[in-house]
Amino acid sequence: MRLSRYFLPTLKETPAEAQIVSHRLMLRAGLIRQEAAGIYAWLPIGFRVLKKIEQIVREEMNRAGAIEILMPTLQPSELWKETGRYDAYGPEMLRITDRHEREPLYGPTNEDMVTEIFRAYVRSYRALPLNLYHIQWKFRDEIRPRFGVMRGREFLMKDAYSFDLDKEGARRSYNKMYVAYLRAFQRMGLTTIPMRAETGPIGGDLSHEFIVLADTGESQVFCHKDLLDMPVPEETVDFDSDLEAFVQQRTRLYAATSDVHDAARFESEVPEDKRVTARGIEVGQIFYFGTKYSVPMKAVVAGPDGKEVPIEGGSYGIGVSRLVGAIIEASHDEAGIIWPSPVAPFDLSLINLKKGDAKTDAACEGLYAKLTAARKDVLYDDTDDRPGAKFATHDLIGNPWQVIVGPRGLEKGTVEAKNRATGAREELSLEAALNRFA
Amino acid sequence: MRLSRYFLPTLKETPAEAQIVSHRLMLRAGLIRQEAAGIYAWLPIGFRVLKKIEQIVREEMNRAGAIEILMPTLQPSELWKETGRYDAYGPEMLRITDRHEREPLYGPTNEDMVTEIFRAYVRSYRALPLNLYHIQWKFRDEIRPRFGVMRGREFLMKDAYSFDLDKEGARRSYNKMYVAYLRAFQRMGLTTIPMRAETGPIGGDLSHEFIVLADTGESQVFCHKDLLDMPVPEETVDFDSDLEAFVQQRTRLYAATSDVHDAARFESEVPEDKRVTARGIEVGQIFYFGTKYSVPMKAVVAGPDGKEVPIEGGSYGIGVSRLVGAIIEASHDEAGIIWPSPVAPFDLSLINLKKGDAKTDAACEGLYAKLTAARKDVLYDDTDDRPGAKFATHDLIGNPWQVIVGPRGLEKGTVEAKNRATGAREELSLEAALNRFA
Repeated sequence: MRLSRYFLPTLKETPAEAQIVSHRLMLRAGLIRQEAAGIYAWLPIGFRVLKKIEQIVREEMNRAGAIEILMPTLQPSELWKETGRYDAYGPEMLRITDRHEREPLYGPTNEDMVTEIFRAYVRSYRALPLNLYHIQWKFRDEIRPRFGVMRGREFLMKDAYSFDLDKEGARRSYNKMYVAYLRAFQRMGLTTIPMRAETGPIGGDLSHEFIVLADTGESQVFCHKDLLDMPVPEETVDFDSDLEAFVQQRTRLYAATSDVHDAARFESEVPEDKRVTARGIEVGQIFYFGTKYSVPMKAVVAGPDGKEVPIEGGSYGIGVSRLVGAIIEASHDEAGIIWPSPVAPFDLSLINLKKGDAKTDAACEGLYAKLTAARKDVLYDDTDDRPGAKFATHDLIGNPWQVIVGPRGLEKGTVEAKNRATGAREELSLEAALNRFA
Repeated sequence: MRLSRYFLPTLKETPAEAQIVSHRLMLRAGLIRQEAAGIYAWLPIGFRVLKKIEQIVREEMNRAGAIEILMPTLQPSELWKETGRYDAYGPEMLRITDRHEREPLYGPTNEDMVTEIFRAYVRSYRALPLNLYHIQWKFRDEIRPRFGVMRGREFLMKDAYSFDLDKEGARRSYNKMYVAYLRAFQRMGLTTIPMRAETGPIGGDLSHEFIVLADTGESQVFCHKDLLDMPVPEETVDFDSDLEAFVQQRTRLYAATSDVHDAARFESEVPEDKRVTARGIEVGQIFYFGTKYSVPMKAVVAGPDGKEVPIEGGSYGIGVSRLVGAIIEASHDEAGIIWPSPVAPFDLSLINLKKGDAKTDAACEGLYAKLTAARKDVLYDDTDDRPGAKFATHDLIGNPWQVIVGPRGLEKGTVEAKNRATGAREELSLEAALNRFA
């Protein structure tokens, strides 16, 4: 993409309304624009990051055997009355009246609707296990939306729903998601720790939140230090195998958010030198809730003996739009964002230090054409801005690499490559730069 | 994908509520489920088709130089009051009251919001031309939603918005979209004819609807026969060149929907043997509306002379979810859907005629593994259903090819390949089948 033809509205001033660093950087780097309280438009580079995160989540869900569907944003209130949640949910639910005086709502989550879909079609245990997921915009009418996309009102969530014949099956489905979540977050450059959590309005008796440690995190968390370094399963992990041993290796170590923290247990179970007390950001949560929805909604299947039983369910959420903020909270410096490569808006920034200089232009055009042909996402800064302004812009938006091309280097036949994360700079021949980045 | 682990809820009965063939087939083939009047959930194969259409639209928009963003579904009413559309829009706009008594609305289109984004950041003509688009769910509270996704209330639309310094620039932007639309629809297997149209609530003085001819089309259309066979620009078309000559070659031939049809002109301009009167389905519409939004919203840029001028605008919509229905209307038979390859849920159905027969299973598993490794989307029917039921299912869901594997063929070392569109069957060796489809 040529920057001269792109839409990258960066801001020089720090927006006064933004209280946390990710919100400030998302506004300054032109990732988002607020359209109403807690409602954002995603500008071009913000959109690119959002899509890359979404795609990683999708790939890991598919790998774990979940099947993608897409439920609508608006839901009929009748479904929520069947489960009793319409009254229970409270003022965070956006309730609407349409022209025919029906009362749809903007879905904050989809347990009720997906259970309706399931019961409409599935009759036999032979269709199980089944895990249906979607990636769709949700709405929660937060009383004080703040922290940008970290606590917005309209937000993008991946939510998956598992259906099993019995508790043992539900446990296996839960474990698949537990592993898929660790993998998805790791691919985004995040170390997450699953922590026992309260089940809240989803209900049920087992839940883990996936927490990213960050100094600016919203909540206090407590865990065993060994959880920070435990390896995450490889791409080749067999999701049909029993993952219980893997999951137990983690769940037997103490990890809890302040909501459920038990100081006495923490001190008795975790040796003093292994006690981690830190700030964390929740980026996903998984629930086993059994028959909470299948009983009131009569989502039953015939078992092997022909008898009908209500299915055992779980639900599994990832805050896709929230992750954009969470990754920035975990990865930035004074100059701006430092994107992990898999979620960066572009693989690299190609910076032309002297637009209009024939030799510099030619070198840049050559690199741009070849890198693009190699299917690299390149943001080519072909604007007339001064070098200092260009450096500031590209540090701010945080692509992992900057390839800097100017007349002085070209006299020696070299360009400069700068690693955004480390700040390390290296002189390379044009050919070496191509080999490195193509 | 193994069908035994998939979620493909086909129906035997024809749903009584569906009045048109695409709606019937989408329900029967398990593409969608109605959740409320005009509001649908997309089931797995429907979702796959929707995503393929979306991706074709995205690629052609990007090729034409448009830049993708993502605006929220809910919009503040203040923006619509600035342009006077809040009162003008009528009861199709879904107006909401949130917990703070603010009045957001569920966006039916985004001219107002994108103009707000533009004016917030762009000050100079040097940033032009600019075309911003998004692919997002919209809502129109149709009084009588019907025909399935063809006239739903919640629907997926691609909408693009161009910003230019002057009318000449706006015309060039309009032409780019005109060409991009022809290309996108052709890639989906559709022949579309751009027809002069009324501008309706978007406003402006130039508009074309893109119409697919189909016997079951919703509206009467009239055009010159030569428009049916005109070639569409190749992938290599230069969107920076002046496309006016190409566009005029089409626009000088008569083509109009019944809304603006002029029978006298039709008869005087079109020779009798070239007059086509047919039914059509609108799948996209483009508008040039000049300063209709930029004047009230003060979206101005400094021109080369330093004077501020309101930008000249256009907007460009494609009904992404509607296209799923339109393609089916244009391509089906008694047995079911006939997908054009680029939008088919899977490239082929692999049908195991005798699950449990060791040799048949082995041949299927081998084909499935190799085709999947070649990155083909294969739906492998490994269920216990009888052959007749399998044939009916795969004809109904309409993947372009069926590769049919059974013990009798395997004794001779062959499998059968059936072309869904023509019904032609061919016996092939396993190796030839691999070469054909991998």
